[in-house]
Amino acid sequence: MSDAPLTVVLDLPRPYLLFVGDADDTTFLKTGLGLRDWAPDLCVAEHKCDGARATLGLPLMDPRQAYAAGARSVVIAAASIGGRIRPAWIPCLVEALEAGLDIISGAHDRLSADPRLRSAADALGRRLIDVRTPPPGLPIATGRRRSGKRLLTVGTDCALGKKYTALALTGAFRARGLAVDFRATGQTGIMIAGSGIPIDSVVSDFVAGAAEALSPDAAPNHWDVIEGQGSVFHPSYAGVSLGLMHGSQPDMLVLCHAHGRELIVGLDGYPLPSIEEAVALSLRLARLTNPDVRCAGVSLNTAGLSDEDATALIARRIDEWGLPVADPMRPSPHFDRLVEACIG
Amino acid sequence: MSDAPLTVVLDLPRPYLLFVGDADDTTFLKTGLGLRDWAPDLCVAEHKCDGARATLGLPLMDPRQAYAAGARSVVIAAASIGGRIRPAWIPCLVEALEAGLDIISGAHDRLSADPRLRSAADALGRRLIDVRTPPPGLPIATGRRRSGKRLLTVGTDCALGKKYTALALTGAFRARGLAVDFRATGQTGIMIAGSGIPIDSVVSDFVAGAAEALSPDAAPNHWDVIEGQGSVFHPSYAGVSLGLMHGSQPDMLVLCHAHGRELIVGLDGYPLPSIEEAVALSLRLARLTNPDVRCAGVSLNTAGLSDEDATALIARRIDEWGLPVADPMRPSPHFDRLVEACIG
Repeated sequence: MSDAPLTVVLDLPRPYLLFVGDADDTTFLKTGLGLRDWAPDLCVAEHKCDGARATLGLPLMDPRQAYAAGARSVVIAAASIGGRIRPAWIPCLVEALEAGLDIISGAHDRLSADPRLRSAADALGRRLIDVRTPPPGLPIATGRRRSGKRLLTVGTDCALGKKYTALALTGAFRARGLAVDFRATGQTGIMIAGSGIPIDSVVSDFVAGAAEALSPDAAPNHWDVIEGQGSVFHPSYAGVSLGLMHGSQPDMLVLCHAHGRELIVGLDGYPLPSIEEAVALSLRLARLTNPDVRCAGVSLNTAGLSDEDATALIARRIDEWGLPVADPMRPSPHFDRLVEACIG
Repeated sequence: MSDAPLTVVLDLPRPYLLFVGDADDTTFLKTGLGLRDWAPDLCVAEHKCDGARATLGLPLMDPRQAYAAGARSVVIAAASIGGRIRPAWIPCLVEALEAGLDIISGAHDRLSADPRLRSAADALGRRLIDVRTPPPGLPIATGRRRSGKRLLTVGTDCALGKKYTALALTGAFRARGLAVDFRATGQTGIMIAGSGIPIDSVVSDFVAGAAEALSPDAAPNHWDVIEGQGSVFHPSYAGVSLGLMHGSQPDMLVLCHAHGRELIVGLDGYPLPSIEEAVALSLRLARLTNPDVRCAGVSLNTAGLSDEDATALIARRIDEWGLPVADPMRPSPHFDRLVEACIG
């Protein structure tokens, strides 16, 4: 069922050649590192401007070699200040078009806004794919219940691990032999999955409908593990999070939280909710479209702690919160218990 | 303070000539009737295709006469099946451009998609304004508290009186000598107000920011009465409603409900919430950006009941719900008490 046609979902030509640009170190290669770590099967090789020193540690190929090795698109794996497409990259990208590759970008700038890229792509019949641009034809949500099982990662704030939690759970489900798809809702996630919908770029009326389209009817035991966005506790983005939640109709939530974070990042004076409040309100809101929704536990981002400190912290939080708690980036029996709580 | 520049808000050229099209009766004139009834000061005259029999009861003028009488735009006041711009209307609209009027449309079709309108507007330096298209440059919400007072109408469902309640409250506030602005969030509301933001057409990331821009800092005793959209209980649109609520930072909510409605319109099997549940969840969600928010009472749509039956029903609901209840379309002491609960 996971191969059902999703006509309103971005579907990226794969596998990828990762374009590193003209970077001298990996500071600006977050997209490339994410792809290398989470989608190694999709990454054929890396390509860079002459003289650039940064590397993702993949084989170095020019676009013709990469096409011959199976690549069907080049992904701009470097970020620049302001999300621009740097002029120095253009000749390398035109070379990729000429070699038969489409171009995939998550930058703010639209690829087609560059006349050299647009004319080369038009002349060669190649695609310029902006992952921030939603596909056309998204429907209004119907609220109709769908077959199959769904898990959604939700957060106490933005940028604390909802995507990585969903990816780690997808891997753990698969390792247990379950039929599972990771459903991507943000640009990096979409590149990792090879498909998805950039939910925060969707016109608000269609957000819940986009979420419905993203996780269609599936076999009864099939899991969609859906990448959450934002937080219903975030004054800027709660509406995005709620539309995604309602359209996803999750059977199971996993609440993502970052240890030590007390205030919403980037705003003045907005405290994070308590875990109890976050679980309770998330369940209350999710029940609108799935009355049977439950919360499996908490994914706790413990980045920066030693393994010993993280393990001790997680043991305390399990007692305190009365739920399974684990950091999915640290394989452990705690994570196994969180996975089992999801599946159970 | 209400004249502060709102650079990211649609601002319509006023007053209007209302274009009735080629209709023979008022069935398709909902926009025109709303404008005539709620914004009579903005409606200079009506204009129609030769031979059309429908009328809004306004003086009949051709575009040149209307321009001379002060009109600065022609509003397409007729709806057609599917929200199209009918070919029969084009010559009349070109005539309006030639007379010096801009064109305002709430149709799904973009005005500029018609080559005759586009070329005439380009040649004459006129504007083609699609009220469904949000203005550019909307910001991300900051959550910063703003000066002035704000009231938001919220609903147990869509299409049950949030706009008319906000308009009636605005009129009642003004009649009591208060400084007040109606803040429009939908196409008809925007035409009535002469400005606003079509909130359900805004990209989801910017909905709360758009709501912040729509009701900027104001004098301490100034009221913005904000037209609500959708419902946090609607599986298709709750995210829109929540983003609008968070950005509006309302001090006061008025809950809108339609007597006798038990299911969400247009969906299968979604019951409306109870009034108690709707008030409680709306307040809980609104507290995120305004901890002091309160609910003044319920605006109850009693359309279809006799005055006697409506009055008796409202008396029963006041006892049952323990809140001020009134139908703002039926002036009454009940409505006065609801207004006082808002202001108090």
